[in-house]
Formats: sequence, structure tokens, C-alpha cells
Amino acid sequence: MKNIILDLDTGIDDTLALAYILGSPDANLLGVTATYGNVLLEQSVKNTLDVLALFGRADIPVYAGQSHPLESASFTVPESSGRYHGANGLGGAHVPVSATRQVEETSAVDFIIESVRADTDGSLVYVPTGPSTNLALAFAKAPDIIAKIKVVMMGGSLTLQGNTGPFAEANMAQDPEASAQVFDSGADITMVGLDVTTRARMGREHLAALRELGTPAGNFLAEMTEFYINVTESDDPGGLEGCNLHDPLAAAVALDEDVVWCFPINVLCETEGPSRGRTIGDPGRAGQPSTTRVALDVDERYFVRHFMQRLLALAAAH
Amino acid sequence: MKNIILDLDTGIDDTLALAYILGSPDANLLGVTATYGNVLLEQSVKNTLDVLALFGRADIPVYAGQSHPLESASFTVPESSGRYHGANGLGGAHVPVSATRQVEETSAVDFIIESVRADTDGSLVYVPTGPSTNLALAFAKAPDIIAKIKVVMMGGSLTLQGNTGPFAEANMAQDPEASAQVFDSGADITMVGLDVTTRARMGREHLAALRELGTPAGNFLAEMTEFYINVTESDDPGGLEGCNLHDPLAAAVALDEDVVWCFPINVLCETEGPSRGRTIGDPGRAGQPSTTRVALDVDERYFVRHFMQRLLALAAAH
Repeated sequence: MKNIILDLDTGIDDTLALAYILGSPDANLLGVTATYGNVLLEQSVKNTLDVLALFGRADIPVYAGQSHPLESASFTVPESSGRYHGANGLGGAHVPVSATRQVEETSAVDFIIESVRADTDGSLVYVPTGPSTNLALAFAKAPDIIAKIKVVMMGGSLTLQGNTGPFAEANMAQDPEASAQVFDSGADITMVGLDVTTRARMGREHLAALRELGTPAGNFLAEMTEFYINVTESDDPGGLEGCNLHDPLAAAVALDEDVVWCFPINVLCETEGPSRGRTIGDPGRAGQPSTTRVALDVDERYFVRHFMQRLLALAAAH
Repeated sequence: MKNIILDLDTGIDDTLALAYILGSPDANLLGVTATYGNVLLEQSVKNTLDVLALFGRADIPVYAGQSHPLESASFTVPESSGRYHGANGLGGAHVPVSATRQVEETSAVDFIIESVRADTDGSLVYVPTGPSTNLALAFAKAPDIIAKIKVVMMGGSLTLQGNTGPFAEANMAQDPEASAQVFDSGADITMVGLDVTTRARMGREHLAALRELGTPAGNFLAEMTEFYINVTESDDPGGLEGCNLHDPLAAAVALDEDVVWCFPINVLCETEGPSRGRTIGDPGRAGQPSTTRVALDVDERYFVRHFMQRLLALAAAH
């Protein structure tokens, strides 16, 4: 059993990752820390609260994190994020408003710090699927957690071009300074980036399976993901069918690292020049043991089957 | 036994690769094709002829290749190449002029084509340690060799920044269009780039071992390599000691691929923008079988010991 903290900028694939974790009997979700990215922080908090209620898990606490990058005073959702995740971040799919639910008073940063300090048996995995801002702030406030935390991060790209341009993956592009601090810290990080997430695909056949359940959760997940597939396919006519399961793959690696094959290499995140936000090997730590592992191969058929089983199990019950 | 063609822009590490192959009982060097890069083509031809004579192998033919990149009418040695390889490309080390030796009349491109066509048992490995121009021209002239040739290339960088700037490794930077054509061809390529060659180092203790031999070849190799070490160390004060064995590592992989661990991935060489010359995974061939393997790990202790044994054996006899 793994204790999990999901750090979500709750758009579509974040929601799929959340549903996957909720549907996993080997995962104990301690809480969700919300961040900005695919949506504004407020929307991320709202989406997380509403979706948790829809999935019957109003007991899981949600903590608000930073609303903007370290070196910016504010944040605006990039055009591409808005296009991929839709107006409400959930592809316009309807989810009932959870009027009774509230965000916690504790901040995301303090919740991360307290949870790592309380982890006595090493069973906690922190899974950020958005920018690294919350984690960088937690490291700055409580450096003692750096040697203890285990991070499985969706983000970055080592062997492929970025998805915001030739260099940077979107999560790294949001706050390169935060990502640079996190990689430089020497913390135990598994980077699940575009190298593998672009090979884990959900297709329209999976939407049909969700709809056949005839449940509110199944219909919601199908409607939301259909939006994501439509945008993905219209962005790349003639390309692969379906959409990428970026965040769900990181969540799956948090539970079972054997889903991917990892290359051990210390990574840096560039903060200057045209490649700002690029993740690349750190020559300054070339001779040192690697604290970062980068997933370079994935058993995509196993992962997608395993992911869908758990998603369907959750959606069938709600 | 492997039949080897070395394609050299004969500077210092090219000469070390040549000496290593000559000292390898499991290598049969069919010929050297000369190219521009670390030095001008004419200097590369001259250095190769002279060094072969010094090593007692005036029987090995040398073929002149292209003198400039595909899309340029001329070539000037970059300042950094001149600095690393010295005025004569051999760190100023003295090697007797081989007055009797001549370059072959056959062109490098034709020799490559004929050799691949004549390779009946798959024992030929073509090892370019400079720009890809000769190989791209051979592929354009004789596309039939693409499916047959086996290439072990020193060049590129997948998980680290370049050495001409943040993006491009020097050999790729010389002629990105040629490298792009070679990678796009689908030929069988093992890329031995900065990912591993920056971890294979020769130090001053190895110079002492060469000098102790008391032979002209030993003294030449020591003098030449000392220049290379001096420049490397002065360029990176406080960094690693010694110099990188870029080209020798590719030569070693040509003889024994188990010296490195390779990640299978189709690669492209970028030809536009600030990252012109960068090697990166090719998303357009993501679903196809990989014809390129990129060396990401090296048993550096084994390699350096093995390399020095062969270098010393050759130098002891000449």
C-alpha cells in the first residue's frame, strides 16, 4: 500500500489520474494539493473538490497551493492549456457542484511538509502533475524533507522535443526556476515525461466502455475525455488516434515503478535563453550518484489495460 | 574479426582512434576516408598518411572525401577546433612527413560505396568521427547501401547539452543537413555521442606510460595527447582531469558493442533555429522500429584499460 499525495492543476488528465488513484486498492490518497497550470488555482481547487464528491470521496482533503510561478506575481492560463482542457478545465463536462465541500485551511506547502515528516515507513509518494512551485516552496521552507521525500513527477522531456515548443514540456515551462530548484536539491525524483507519456494513449473505444456503465461518473469521464481526444486529434491531423495519458502514467509509476524503465541521470531544468524550461542531463553532477531517474520506456499495453480496469471499476460504482 | 573503415577529420582524438584500431588484433582496417572538421580536408589527408607511416602501416589506403558541408561552398576550421587540435591538428606534435605516400585516386564516397557492396558477410563497420558529409553523399549516390551498411558514429548528444553551445555536438554542428539525411535514411546507426564520450577519459598517467616506451610512436602520442589534455583542463578549470576519448570510444564500440549500453530510439538532427545541429528523438518515427541506437552508458574503466593496452602495444613496436 502506498500513501499518495497528488499535486494537481486539475485539468482533464489530472482528473483521470485522480480517478485512477481512487480506483486503485493499493493506493491510499492522503490528500490533493492544488496548483495552477492547466487552469487557475481557484479552478483547480474547485474541480478537485467537485470531482472527489462525484467519485464519492468527499472525505479526501484538498489543499490550496501557490497561484503563480516563483518569479511572477500572477499567472494566466496559456492559450494552449485552455484549448486542451476547455473552459472549466474539464472539457466543459458537467460535474455537480459540491456546495458543502471546502478547501482546507492548511496550505499545500505545509501539508506536504507535515506529510513527509510524518512518513515513518517510506510509503509516501508525492506526485506532482503540474508546475514544481509547491514542491520548491516546501523544500525552501523545510530542507529536512529533501532527503526523505520520494517524488514521481509528470513533467519534462529528455529524449524528445518539448510540447510548448522545441525545448520545454508544459509543466517545466510554467515555472522553470521552481523545477530547477527541485532537480538541484538532490531529492529522489522519478521523472515521467514526454519520453513515455506520449506513448500511453487512450482512444475512443475506451470512451465507449465508460459510457456503457451508464453511471454519472462514467458519463462524466467519457464526456470530459472525448473533449481531450477531439482537441488532440484536431491538433495533429493524420497523427496517432486518441489522447496522451500524461498524468495517469505518473500516478501508475508511483504505485508500481515497473510500469516504466528508467535511466538514472541527474537532470537540470534550464532557466535561460530559448530553451528555458528544457530538462537535460546535468554535467555538473556527472560524476555523482544519480538521484533522478528518467523514464525512457513504458509497457504501454499493460499500462493502458491496467489504467482502464481501475478507471472502470471506480466509475461503475458512482 | 571486423572490417573497419574509419572516416576521420584527423585531429588528436581521431589519431588516437586510428592508433587503437591499428593496435587491435580483431580489427582489419580496410582504409581511411578523410573529411574536414577538426582540420581542413588537406590536413586530414596529410595527417592520416603521415601517422599511418609512423605506425608502420603505409599499406593502408587513404581516400579524400568532401572538403565542405553539403550546403556550403567552403569550410573554415572553427576557432574551438583549432584550439583543441593545434596548428597541424596534432597538437603541434612532430610526425615525420611521409613523402612517398599518396592519397588514392578513388574518392572517399566511391570507396565507401564499393566497400559496402563488397561486404558479403556483414563484417564491415563504417566509423565516422567527423561530420556526416561523406556518408550522406554516399547514400545519395548509392541508395542500395543504406539497407546494408552498419554505422558506428561518434557524434551527437541526446541527454546532455552540446559542446558547441547548449544544443549541438561539434560533428553534428559541422553539417546538420548531412546528419539529418543520414539519420532519416533508416540506416543501422549506433550513435556514440557526448552522453558517453565525456565519461571516457585519458589522463596524464597514461602519457607517462606512453613515454616510458621510449619509441617514436610512444613519444608522438604522448606529446600530441598532452596538448589535448592541457587545452581541455584550461577550458574547464576545476573540472575533471584529462581529456575525453570521443573518437576512440566509437572505434571500440565498432569492435565490441558491449562496451556501451544503448537505448533504441530513432533520432533526427535539427537543421533550423537556435538548436540547429541538435540530435533528438524523432516523433515522426515514434511508432516504427528503431534503426538508431544511442549509447547512454559506458563501462569507462574497462574501456580505458582496454584502449590503453592496445595503444601501448602499437606504440611499443614503432
